[in-house]
Amino acid sequence: MKALIIAAGKGTRLRMLAKDRPKPLVRLLGLSLIERVILTARESGINEFVIVIGYLGDKIKEKLGDGRDYKVKIEYVENEEWERGNGVSVLKAKKHFKENFVLLMADHIFDASILKRLKKIDLNENECILVVDKSPQEYIDLGDATKVKTKDGYIQDIGKKIKDYNCIDCGIFFLSPSIFKALEESIEHGDETLSGGIRVLARKGKMKSFDVNDNFWIDIDTVSSYKAAEKILCKRLLKKTDGPVSRYLNRPLSIRISKILVRFNIKPNLISLISFGISFLAFLLFCLGDYLYVATGGILSQISSIVDGCDGEVARLKFQGSKYGAWFDAVLDRYADALIILGMVYGWWSIHSEVCIWIVGFFAMMGSFMNSYTAIKYDEVLLKRRENVRVGRDLRLFLIMVGALLGQIYYTLFVLGVLTNFVSLRRIFLLKKYKEVLNE
Amino acid sequence: MKALIIAAGKGTRLRMLAKDRPKPLVRLLGLSLIERVILTARESGINEFVIVIGYLGDKIKEKLGDGRDYKVKIEYVENEEWERGNGVSVLKAKKHFKENFVLLMADHIFDASILKRLKKIDLNENECILVVDKSPQEYIDLGDATKVKTKDGYIQDIGKKIKDYNCIDCGIFFLSPSIFKALEESIEHGDETLSGGIRVLARKGKMKSFDVNDNFWIDIDTVSSYKAAEKILCKRLLKKTDGPVSRYLNRPLSIRISKILVRFNIKPNLISLISFGISFLAFLLFCLGDYLYVATGGILSQISSIVDGCDGEVARLKFQGSKYGAWFDAVLDRYADALIILGMVYGWWSIHSEVCIWIVGFFAMMGSFMNSYTAIKYDEVLLKRRENVRVGRDLRLFLIMVGALLGQIYYTLFVLGVLTNFVSLRRIFLLKKYKEVLNE
Repeated sequence: MKALIIAAGKGTRLRMLAKDRPKPLVRLLGLSLIERVILTARESGINEFVIVIGYLGDKIKEKLGDGRDYKVKIEYVENEEWERGNGVSVLKAKKHFKENFVLLMADHIFDASILKRLKKIDLNENECILVVDKSPQEYIDLGDATKVKTKDGYIQDIGKKIKDYNCIDCGIFFLSPSIFKALEESIEHGDETLSGGIRVLARKGKMKSFDVNDNFWIDIDTVSSYKAAEKILCKRLLKKTDGPVSRYLNRPLSIRISKILVRFNIKPNLISLISFGISFLAFLLFCLGDYLYVATGGILSQISSIVDGCDGEVARLKFQGSKYGAWFDAVLDRYADALIILGMVYGWWSIHSEVCIWIVGFFAMMGSFMNSYTAIKYDEVLLKRRENVRVGRDLRLFLIMVGALLGQIYYTLFVLGVLTNFVSLRRIFLLKKYKEVLNE
Repeated sequence: MKALIIAAGKGTRLRMLAKDRPKPLVRLLGLSLIERVILTARESGINEFVIVIGYLGDKIKEKLGDGRDYKVKIEYVENEEWERGNGVSVLKAKKHFKENFVLLMADHIFDASILKRLKKIDLNENECILVVDKSPQEYIDLGDATKVKTKDGYIQDIGKKIKDYNCIDCGIFFLSPSIFKALEESIEHGDETLSGGIRVLARKGKMKSFDVNDNFWIDIDTVSSYKAAEKILCKRLLKKTDGPVSRYLNRPLSIRISKILVRFNIKPNLISLISFGISFLAFLLFCLGDYLYVATGGILSQISSIVDGCDGEVARLKFQGSKYGAWFDAVLDRYADALIILGMVYGWWSIHSEVCIWIVGFFAMMGSFMNSYTAIKYDEVLLKRRENVRVGRDLRLFLIMVGALLGQIYYTLFVLGVLTNFVSLRRIFLLKKYKEVLNE
């Protein structure tokens, strides 16, 4: 399925951020708005795009090229009359669409799951669908929004100024080519907006509505909506599997770091390696055994734990996530965990020369590994089912920092060994109870 | 979808094995033939069964009950005229089938994937399908087999004695209720076999054929086919992910043990625990440090490695496999691995008092864990793609036995550490090359 993206307008209200760029090229967390739209659509399985450009269109063309860098195909339609209504822009692309297609706005950011659901619908002949929001969030600017009146799944009226409405236009459409005829009819009658065309279809009973449900979408039209979008995209980086330390300490910090990192061309795997490098430094410092080194090692462990969140965050913010990346990160984490514990043991032993630390260290390492090993299935089955404090890497490295700062390496390893092995054994019994779920 | 199972006949040629039981209750690797048929069908998603019983039918009824023990629903149809042809048995079940259904023989063992593929077919009105084998294996008794002549996917003739044939009847059918009318017609003309009914449909151009391809099936009619089935079912226990030691040493032994274990009511998870128990014993013996203890510990490690194969084998042979079971086994294995290495280190240290063994042990433990941790993705992606010697638990525990017998704990741990960490790092790079596959 192909998508049409409208990127012709000027977007005067975002001029402050746009500076000398057209609005679709305004950057939001490392990607321009239109890049975000394209990559979101790609995530939902759309690989071919037609973009209608107008105001400063060459800059958009220069930025996106033929789409190769994004692993998609992009064609352009130039609309020199971009100052007319957006219905004219859609109409200019007419010859590119003989089949059903998706229509998107270059400045509307949204969740890929909306498109995934939308694409699955079997469109009746000549019917079209508009995605609408029945309970818009407070960050949606209702004053400027296009209002929609729906009844029984069909649109009855649409417009910025209608009084009787029950939802608002999300700027995401699933259209059959019948839209072009409707636009022609509307423009003939003097209404050059896309809404005009939609109204024509609505009058014929051919315009369906589709509820956005609770999925995220936002029209980035003002500085305040830009800031709201930034905030929401960052909030979406929190994971259900985040443990308590991650939630309240690591994430708030790592997201701040990620917001800086996305500005540069740093690949997520490099961030994983940097986090590992910090752990390796901690390992070396721990090996030295003296309090100051050990305390610094503890702090570095915690820093590596924070940085460890950034690879995934940057990957998600820039649509660079991959299964290999997630796996590579996990493997490096296991090595980092093992080295940190080895460093702690060696350092303590080199000073106290008591061999019992090695046994305690062995159990701590065993438990740490098992803690991660059992987490995969545990998160899959149980975190969906019930609220729980998840004992994981965030907590382990935090404990190590606290223990190191207190100069209590021996007890830290002891607590770590008991805690992690206890949690792993508990998971074995918990998952046994839920084994029917596991086999589903 | 429902299945009809024909279990009315006497099966005189298998009398030697049947003794006082009806043939469907002859046991093969821990399950009676009819239990195998039911559980295979269940694996393909069929949960309702109608069984036609005749000769010693009460014994079958007593064994299977209402199917609750197998998590399926079973109804019975009694055919007192079981000495007549098998077409009569099928006809007796007529009132139970108003929709398409699967017809199976109580003495035909086969691969669930045949039914999975078969069930997906959209049957045309009044058409039926017979699964046929175009290149039967040498263990199929061609003399007694029902021969089939097919052309362009349709059956033209069928019978035990036809001369012109190109494949043979596998005894697996996908039928519409039209079969009952065909059987009535055939019986009226004096042919009481199921083949008679099929011939009637074939003449009307309503009988399709479906190639079994290379999937396993066998008609257990004689002692030699019984033995062939046993052999094949055991051979299918070998896994693609088996390493070299597993393939050539552990599996041949563990399958022999499993063949005994299946006769008893021992759950696979208990076998996992027994294997862990043996490893724990090995750990204790290693801790003692003296050569004789260590050597025995080494042998016990290898024995636990062999027994570790049995849980999965018994599970697969008795359709008791579960995701939880596989996971539980893997988690116990990781604990066993860690304890065995800890025991080796502690035992060696208690005699030599050189702390370097602890560091070597740490690396060996780290590598062993990573070897297992990286194996999941590695097996998923790469073992499908190319032949390779897989370094895994089988090889690790074998090395440990050899090292222990040679009294070389230190070097064993050293080699183990180098080998397992090398393999894990290699997998990181290998998988990076195949990351596109991983992301599929």
